[in-house]
Amino acid sequence: MYGPGDVRVEEREASRIVEPTDAVIRVSAACVCGSDLWPYRGVEDLPWPAPMGHEYAGIVEEVGDEVETIKPGQFVVGSFWATDNTCDICRAGYQSGCVNRVPMGMLGAQADLLRVPLADGTLVATPEMPSDDLVPSLLSASDVLGTGWFGAVAAEAGPGKAVGVVGDGAVGLLAVLAAKQLGAERIVAMSRHESRQRLAREYGATDVVEERGDAGVAAIKELTDGLGAHSVVEAVGTQESMMQAIQATRPGGHVGFVGVAHDVAIDGMELFWSLAHVHGGPAPVRRFLPELIDLIWNGQINPGKVFDLELPLDEAADGYRAMDQREAIKVLLRP
Amino acid sequence: MYGPGDVRVEEREASRIVEPTDAVIRVSAACVCGSDLWPYRGVEDLPWPAPMGHEYAGIVEEVGDEVETIKPGQFVVGSFWATDNTCDICRAGYQSGCVNRVPMGMLGAQADLLRVPLADGTLVATPEMPSDDLVPSLLSASDVLGTGWFGAVAAEAGPGKAVGVVGDGAVGLLAVLAAKQLGAERIVAMSRHESRQRLAREYGATDVVEERGDAGVAAIKELTDGLGAHSVVEAVGTQESMMQAIQATRPGGHVGFVGVAHDVAIDGMELFWSLAHVHGGPAPVRRFLPELIDLIWNGQINPGKVFDLELPLDEAADGYRAMDQREAIKVLLRP
Repeated sequence: MYGPGDVRVEEREASRIVEPTDAVIRVSAACVCGSDLWPYRGVEDLPWPAPMGHEYAGIVEEVGDEVETIKPGQFVVGSFWATDNTCDICRAGYQSGCVNRVPMGMLGAQADLLRVPLADGTLVATPEMPSDDLVPSLLSASDVLGTGWFGAVAAEAGPGKAVGVVGDGAVGLLAVLAAKQLGAERIVAMSRHESRQRLAREYGATDVVEERGDAGVAAIKELTDGLGAHSVVEAVGTQESMMQAIQATRPGGHVGFVGVAHDVAIDGMELFWSLAHVHGGPAPVRRFLPELIDLIWNGQINPGKVFDLELPLDEAADGYRAMDQREAIKVLLRP
Repeated sequence: MYGPGDVRVEEREASRIVEPTDAVIRVSAACVCGSDLWPYRGVEDLPWPAPMGHEYAGIVEEVGDEVETIKPGQFVVGSFWATDNTCDICRAGYQSGCVNRVPMGMLGAQADLLRVPLADGTLVATPEMPSDDLVPSLLSASDVLGTGWFGAVAAEAGPGKAVGVVGDGAVGLLAVLAAKQLGAERIVAMSRHESRQRLAREYGATDVVEERGDAGVAAIKELTDGLGAHSVVEAVGTQESMMQAIQATRPGGHVGFVGVAHDVAIDGMELFWSLAHVHGGPAPVRRFLPELIDLIWNGQINPGKVFDLELPLDEAADGYRAMDQREAIKVLLRP
């Protein structure tokens, strides 16, 4: 990306092993993330020109001398953070806060070849080579599914719970899927787009609320005996969506927020009186990857459906445009 | 309180049973709360003149027709919220969010007689009449101990954890005591007052940090392998103390905040990247009361030590002044 709205596909020097803990993979599929739209829209600044993309699945080409578990020829999925998976923070399940973390976005996964630092701690191999139809779902585990899943886990979605989901982008839709898998009793998707509502219902939403702001909060309360949801996933990242999530949560309930919080300020007094738990941030996808790959491999979930536009990598600029205009939920790029 | 700085003790109509679920108690001891200082300092407005006090322990004089478990003659401690203890929110342990809650402060516990609504759901009786030396500790369970305890529970203090406590008021000191009881391995009290540091150490603090703000955060990190504490209790309620708590917490760690958050705005991006859990609010003291009374009754904890000034109720104005000037940690009033 050369600047806001300016995406170009061009030849760069091929990725290669730099550190002995690196792997280089041939990318089978990458994609455009909702968070890539922040710089695209000029809301976030990058050191232009910036390589783009942090979601990836592909085949290992080469590994460094110190890589032990990952082997050339394996099909792998990795988190959007490269992490050692051995430090205290990783072992507590917060790999996205790893003391040695490297953001994969800096390396640019929207490419043929991708260097993955800390390969043993970052990548998870599939049991064997996947069929082509599984690739989108496996790719989704790299971020968008893992992030929606973290949102639902952070919101403590589970049996007997009423779960609200603010945001009907790919992350929000996959938070619905996650809440369903985690056993939630009632799942309320907040969406005003028919095609997204349909996918939300397919993924397990029991109710759809079209209202936003105060009216949206009132609608959630009406569905929950006036108390608010036990769990609310915030998957947008604006002031309105964050406050909507907190206000729609009952006292003692949990907000899981995974929208990158731009220009959000949470009023202390409001949070105090809400008695809600608030937890979120960049998802520790690596924590969930083995389980998610397993669910996909066994056909129990089909998160790949969020990709409603597939383009060759050469046409990446069209992919950004389609997501920016909300013509596509999520765009898959095939190198 | 007739206005900021203006506390008067005067004759009012005696409290009596109004609802059939009420009890009236003869107050053995009441006290001045840190939160009473907000209106005293003019930071918070009240409908003047306002009866004051929401912490109390005493002997039941009379109960309404529908009160079943509480009996006249019992020594009781109650939460600073009157609550039904039967609604979904109460049963989830969030009595301070009870759908029928009544703030005891409106009724004025700094008095001879006190009406307690929803007596069965609010009051807990001691096994028998306590000796006089147990009264301060039992009184503390009504709010200040219960609140410190909630802060430590909300911060998930426990075995193997490093716990930081921001604030050396009575709540902060009792959060130290709670963290110790909950089995925390390391407890860092943030205080620059020698007498409070001494009590913090007596209650279980293993370390004391005098620095505040960025320097305080750096000191906590230095004590925790550069990672930050697992758990931080925020017991002040200012912007600085809240950000200090969040920044001193490691990724995946927990902030329990019980300071009434005045003019606090939590930056969404900072919270996002911190990966901390944030939970707090008005403490659901009723959840903890049976356990706390038990610990006090058996001499396992002595939270009453936070009362370093005892005055007859008639001299309440001096008590407010002493706490406002930080001459006393906490003032006990004897009617």
